[in-house]
Amino acid sequence: MKISIDAMGGDYAPESIVKGINLAKKEFPNIEFQLYGEPEAIKAHLEDEKNIKIIATTELIDFHDEPVKAIRKKKDSSLVRAVKAVKDGEADAVLSAGNTGALLAAGLFIVGRIKQIDRPALMSTLPTADGTGFDMLDLGANAENKPEHLADFAILGSYYAANVRGVKNPRVALLSNGSEESKGSTMIKETHALLSNIEDINFIGNIESRDILTGAADVVVADGFTGNAVLKAIEGTASVLMRQIKNGIMNGGFTTKIGGALVKKELSKLKDTMSTDSAGGAALVGVKAPVIKAHGNSSPEAIVSTIRQIHRMLETDVTGQLVKHFEYKN
Amino acid sequence: MKISIDAMGGDYAPESIVKGINLAKKEFPNIEFQLYGEPEAIKAHLEDEKNIKIIATTELIDFHDEPVKAIRKKKDSSLVRAVKAVKDGEADAVLSAGNTGALLAAGLFIVGRIKQIDRPALMSTLPTADGTGFDMLDLGANAENKPEHLADFAILGSYYAANVRGVKNPRVALLSNGSEESKGSTMIKETHALLSNIEDINFIGNIESRDILTGAADVVVADGFTGNAVLKAIEGTASVLMRQIKNGIMNGGFTTKIGGALVKKELSKLKDTMSTDSAGGAALVGVKAPVIKAHGNSSPEAIVSTIRQIHRMLETDVTGQLVKHFEYKN
Repeated sequence: MKISIDAMGGDYAPESIVKGINLAKKEFPNIEFQLYGEPEAIKAHLEDEKNIKIIATTELIDFHDEPVKAIRKKKDSSLVRAVKAVKDGEADAVLSAGNTGALLAAGLFIVGRIKQIDRPALMSTLPTADGTGFDMLDLGANAENKPEHLADFAILGSYYAANVRGVKNPRVALLSNGSEESKGSTMIKETHALLSNIEDINFIGNIESRDILTGAADVVVADGFTGNAVLKAIEGTASVLMRQIKNGIMNGGFTTKIGGALVKKELSKLKDTMSTDSAGGAALVGVKAPVIKAHGNSSPEAIVSTIRQIHRMLETDVTGQLVKHFEYKN
Repeated sequence: MKISIDAMGGDYAPESIVKGINLAKKEFPNIEFQLYGEPEAIKAHLEDEKNIKIIATTELIDFHDEPVKAIRKKKDSSLVRAVKAVKDGEADAVLSAGNTGALLAAGLFIVGRIKQIDRPALMSTLPTADGTGFDMLDLGANAENKPEHLADFAILGSYYAANVRGVKNPRVALLSNGSEESKGSTMIKETHALLSNIEDINFIGNIESRDILTGAADVVVADGFTGNAVLKAIEGTASVLMRQIKNGIMNGGFTTKIGGALVKKELSKLKDTMSTDSAGGAALVGVKAPVIKAHGNSSPEAIVSTIRQIHRMLETDVTGQLVKHFEYKN
């Protein structure tokens, strides 16, 4: 297995990325890690060069770059070169913690779509109260979708949950504004009808965004606009609440502060359960090879989780299975 | 001022509703409260009948009823009769904690739309970290919307924030999947262009759902499908997190339990800040008179808040101002 890595992408790159790879290569001695970026900057954090290949690049795509323009102009950027390694057969999968839009565009235009799939989607494993998690897509690769796209998302998500997370017969639900079949926009109602007729998935009907974090479904399918809005609402609410609790305790009286110290362990355990760190990165699904986006602020541990996720995707050949599925679709 | 009240609607009706009115009539001695429902059941909780009018009804719309069918068939239900009182000029506004869909349908078909407004919307004042709150619409009165509808929502929300909440020159934002003007679906981009050209509102551009709870806007405009999904994602996340914290503390060791007891006050203060109880109910805006939906599980205090909100709507004649605004639109 060979994984190409954009060593320069992310808030704490290359340090966080390289330190993550130091850890990952102990866990996965059979993986070759190809690090794209500035050799000196990379080597400064690298423990040793066993199973490591460093490929020098001269350009950098940052968070301010306009995605499509950036991948066209900055051909020698660490991001574009790492993605191109997959296209050229030099690597089996690519990982970046850099500019999301640029990685999506590079995945789409350089790696390319699986035949019969019009619109690849961005998918993440989100945490649930019971710790099992669920896969949600599209989280914003598309600004709008048709029912046919969502039908593809259902299959992509179902294969992923079954293979990478080991969920048996994953329950696939459609995000709508009511659990009844009659609820939702025209687009959602048409999607409901399509999903009901796909034999290969275990479609359990509509789900409301209120219920997704409870573990009521293993895969939640949404159009890119709504999926993105729901994801950011979850993130925003969790962040505001945790900050409010922290502030309330910090600004509270003496007894509150003591109490805060005593519950600290529980709160940090909660933060771990609800954190996306351990679930790996967001996958661009529907393209010909795993293209994975780690959080911009990924810690070395989050990079290891993401390598674990990619390893599982390659080991199960979930992408190869999907290529076959869609090849025989028509 | 006369307010008609569906005394039988809600999880704890009529007890919670009537007890709320007992409190409200002390605060607002100039309001006549018209209670629609079963006289004996109402009287069992009523302190005295000063400023109270009880109107006997024989039917009940519950949460299982299909909204449009229910308002057509159950003409003598407390909900339909209370709404009809507004239509007939017997009351100035109506309040129900019952079936949301039925109240929306009754508001739409019985009270009727303001001239020039195609699609009334459901709006609530949601809590922010700083305690000021923001008004969001549409929260699900519509399953899909056109840009013209959202332009109306912007005006409805802006008048409401300015009059009922006393916000000077309310900042109106459009919910999208990026803050840049170029972000969003075709519908959202068209709406952005429309909102930029409305002179009567202070349009500040797009907002992501991640940022709405921080108080970055006073009014957030969304299509009914996305608004509903975002609202329920916020509610679901808050509920899961608070329950997780509670469980973590309850199932923790001795020190954690002690700590939990010490921070209890802060957590309950937080719950108050983030609670929608004090902000009143959800308003169906764009109809000819205030039609207000209180939470199904409203406490007597929540009913008082909702009466306060209705009082403010009537006092400022926000609906009359809107009728005038849209009358002169074309």
